Amino acid sequence: MTTDRTPDRSRRSERSRQAILAATRELIAESGYAKVSIEAIAARAGVGKQTIYRWWSSKGAVIFDSFLALSESADGAGIELPDTGDLAADLKLVLRATAAEFADPEFERPIRALNSALIHDPELAARYRETLARPVDEAKKARLRSAQKSGQLDPAADLDLVSEMLYAPLFQRWLLRTGPLTDEYADALVDNTLRAFRP
Amino acid sequence: MTTDRTPDRSRRSERSRQAILAATRELIAESGYAKVSIEAIAARAGVGKQTIYRWWSSKGAVIFDSFLALSESADGAGIELPDTGDLAADLKLVLRATAAEFADPEFERPIRALNSALIHDPELAARYRETLARPVDEAKKARLRSAQKSGQLDPAADLDLVSEMLYAPLFQRWLLRTGPLTDEYADALVDNTLRAFRP
Repeated sequence: MTTDRTPDRSRRSERSRQAILAATRELIAESGYAKVSIEAIAARAGVGKQTIYRWWSSKGAVIFDSFLALSESADGAGIELPDTGDLAADLKLVLRATAAEFADPEFERPIRALNSALIHDPELAARYRETLARPVDEAKKARLRSAQKSGQLDPAADLDLVSEMLYAPLFQRWLLRTGPLTDEYADALVDNTLRAFRP
Repeated sequence: MTTDRTPDRSRRSERSRQAILAATRELIAESGYAKVSIEAIAARAGVGKQTIYRWWSSKGAVIFDSFLALSESADGAGIELPDTGDLAADLKLVLRATAAEFADPEFERPIRALNSALIHDPELAARYRETLARPVDEAKKARLRSAQKSGQLDPAADLDLVSEMLYAPLFQRWLLRTGPLTDEYADALVDNTLRAFRP
């Protein structure tokens, strides 16, 4: 988009950028966050380390953008939770799917890498909230608002709190490996959270 | 304790070990997990890198033991939650204190460092559960069991689930910096979790 670049240079630049992001995702999937280095990413992408540092300030920043690129290439039209009219059934479906995703080794490494980067970097964490977490949070709250309208959830409930009580235990169990992520566990989270916020 | 060491060597060894653990805690407090290296720990402790690698396999392992040493030097007699007979009041006290601790910058860096090490290392995570998390979990569950006996909590409630619904939202909010850690938030977690598990 800048005027001081010829179309060719710009295209080459974009190719390098995509190669770096793809190399980052591959390396994380192969060996996990701790073992991925800027050097390894540069070697895999076939670029110099300086090329990476021109665009990103840290390993965490490259990792973050490698995730962002994935979510951009997916359908950007917005996320929606199922709404069959039965809140408990819909949430159980979503939480069971989330539990299964967490248990999937393919998903495991990249998402641990992302979380590790977020823990130490408040700036990345803010970008994460804005660009990746917010659309998902909004989708969850839209479903909860619909349930408030249909009388299945306390109309005065704090929807951030409801959403955290539903999802945070699952997240913590997975992150710290403190218990099994089963369908039964997902169902129990839904049943008990909804009991707390009955109209 | 080994027979092939003279008392002097053994004392020197223990001094080095303690110096390494203290240096690790200092460095984490000063600059956070990402910037702490085995080299920096060795330099601060006045030992060679090999001395560290003789006892620990990774940075995460040293960090973990630097925490464990702290908890060992504290009173090992066991942790107990307050039990005034009023479950909601006791839990609010504990959750408010937990929220305040999370918000304390002194606590912030070391505990982020520990969590980052745990995310990527299932073996450390298992040691964490056994040696650091379990005594705290047991104390929480003992308080909940006492409430079951006095009729303040559903006697059939899964106490792991109750404990996770109480604490995981606080942990996640702090870890991902997704919201303020206030007394009001701590109280809302207690009130809503107890509503879900009313007898």
